[in-house]
Amino acid sequence: MNKLLIVGTVAFDAIETPFGKTDKILGGAATYIGLSASFFKVKSAIVSVVGEDFPQEYLDLLTSKNIDISAIEVVKGGKTFFWSGRYHNDLNSRDTLVTELNTLADFQPKVPANFTDADVVMLGNLHPIVQISVLDQLTATPKLVVLDTMNFWMDCALPELKEVMKRVDVITINDEEARQLSGEYSLVKAAAKIHEMGPKYVVIKKGEHGALLFHGSNVFFAPALPLEDVFDPTGAGDTFAGGFAGYIAQSENIAFENLKNGIIYGSNLASFCVEQFGTQRMEKLTKTEVLDRLQQFRALTQFDIALDTQETNA
Amino acid sequence: MNKLLIVGTVAFDAIETPFGKTDKILGGAATYIGLSASFFKVKSAIVSVVGEDFPQEYLDLLTSKNIDISAIEVVKGGKTFFWSGRYHNDLNSRDTLVTELNTLADFQPKVPANFTDADVVMLGNLHPIVQISVLDQLTATPKLVVLDTMNFWMDCALPELKEVMKRVDVITINDEEARQLSGEYSLVKAAAKIHEMGPKYVVIKKGEHGALLFHGSNVFFAPALPLEDVFDPTGAGDTFAGGFAGYIAQSENIAFENLKNGIIYGSNLASFCVEQFGTQRMEKLTKTEVLDRLQQFRALTQFDIALDTQETNA
Repeated sequence: MNKLLIVGTVAFDAIETPFGKTDKILGGAATYIGLSASFFKVKSAIVSVVGEDFPQEYLDLLTSKNIDISAIEVVKGGKTFFWSGRYHNDLNSRDTLVTELNTLADFQPKVPANFTDADVVMLGNLHPIVQISVLDQLTATPKLVVLDTMNFWMDCALPELKEVMKRVDVITINDEEARQLSGEYSLVKAAAKIHEMGPKYVVIKKGEHGALLFHGSNVFFAPALPLEDVFDPTGAGDTFAGGFAGYIAQSENIAFENLKNGIIYGSNLASFCVEQFGTQRMEKLTKTEVLDRLQQFRALTQFDIALDTQETNA
Repeated sequence: MNKLLIVGTVAFDAIETPFGKTDKILGGAATYIGLSASFFKVKSAIVSVVGEDFPQEYLDLLTSKNIDISAIEVVKGGKTFFWSGRYHNDLNSRDTLVTELNTLADFQPKVPANFTDADVVMLGNLHPIVQISVLDQLTATPKLVVLDTMNFWMDCALPELKEVMKRVDVITINDEEARQLSGEYSLVKAAAKIHEMGPKYVVIKKGEHGALLFHGSNVFFAPALPLEDVFDPTGAGDTFAGGFAGYIAQSENIAFENLKNGIIYGSNLASFCVEQFGTQRMEKLTKTEVLDRLQQFRALTQFDIALDTQETNA
């Protein structure tokens, strides 16, 4: 089985949406990535840090999904990274209410010896220096390195972000971040400029408006599944990235045609993530449900236009 | 050849975008619909009204595209409907600067005798009473009636709009209008409510974010083609509707699977419309270019995931 190395936060989230609010619940980029990737036949490990306040049951949950948690450092006397946010009515924007870095402030990632030769590396949203440190510990070149990041690092760690971008194959960012990073409004132009910064593949996430995969002049688009209700968008982007990375790690095929499938699986898994608060839906999700939804994605996007060649009479 | 009856404005537009501005140029919903539908093998006619100030060369242009203009009334001494607007920097919103109804104020549509048995009727954006008057003049039930409308009529002619909605098969509106009309934020829920108002098929246009086709529990999505530059979105929605109606009229097939193809062709043609100001791009567009772009839409959306049935092990 291929190895997927995941680095990112394992955290507490407190979430408020128009549909309700939660106390501190399980959250964090690596948590969502790991849960999402667990639907594929891969051997995955999370590199992260938590405090002594982090419940064993959360760690057990990750273990039950066949995720190697031996590199999730538990800091004695430390407190776990905590984020709290409130979504606006349309769920497309949110205010951060609380960010407590806690143990994350001094996080020194340690890649487990048996994962320094990982086939796919998924760098979840974290300080670019932490992401670089993970790449520095690898002993073999991965088939694919995927970088997720956000506007926060563009604002306060741009040189470091540009360093890590030079060392990855794929970057996943949202549309506003792509515009900020490139200075281009057109996403086609933005992707071209970001490509020049390093990543061969540029994935632009547009939330409810789907995701674009760019590679040179090739473009692929996966819509978000139209849902009756979105309860909580938290973790959707990480779930998307986890589905993408997990599928690629399983299939061992980094051709553009196969990356398309990864984008579809990422969108598929993200469509479940938003159906309930936090990680609830992903915890109970079955592979059968994922495969059923794959049929919905087919129905949503696939068409068959028979070409009458005589139409070409212009 | 099947007959497509188009009702809508034939007008002057003056447009300002971040890329430039125009004087009075050819515009109007029926103009864009007619130009777009002209790429299909259909016999189409426009029912509309203009003033004596309307240049013969514009009428000749429509005739050169095999559009029957005998039902475009030219009002002696009258002035043509004029709209002027300025787009904001992101091109997603605009301010209307001038609306002069002129001859449109007293428009009494007269369906030509040889089109009262049209196969497909495309009701372009106009007062719902005018749209109803067109339906009242038909002598045979069309295979498909498509209604385009906008928020303006929801604000000031809602009862009449609801009347015409009961008599059409397909409605095309944008996402904000769907939300206004239904009172639902979720587009899935909005489409279900709009369906209850009459139309079997609900098409929700999301501009640069593509278009959704709803029919009962079936949903199909066509993305907008990602473009390096959008110069002028004017007429894109009408071009989309014209491509949809033209394709359906040509193919004589109103099954959901074929309406999907209509949505793809609509998106295809709209992607050209926005590349230049006004109708410029549509005037010069060739069928070869449309068929080439169909390949781009395939590449953009089609995928092939081989299912390993053993994956269903949950």
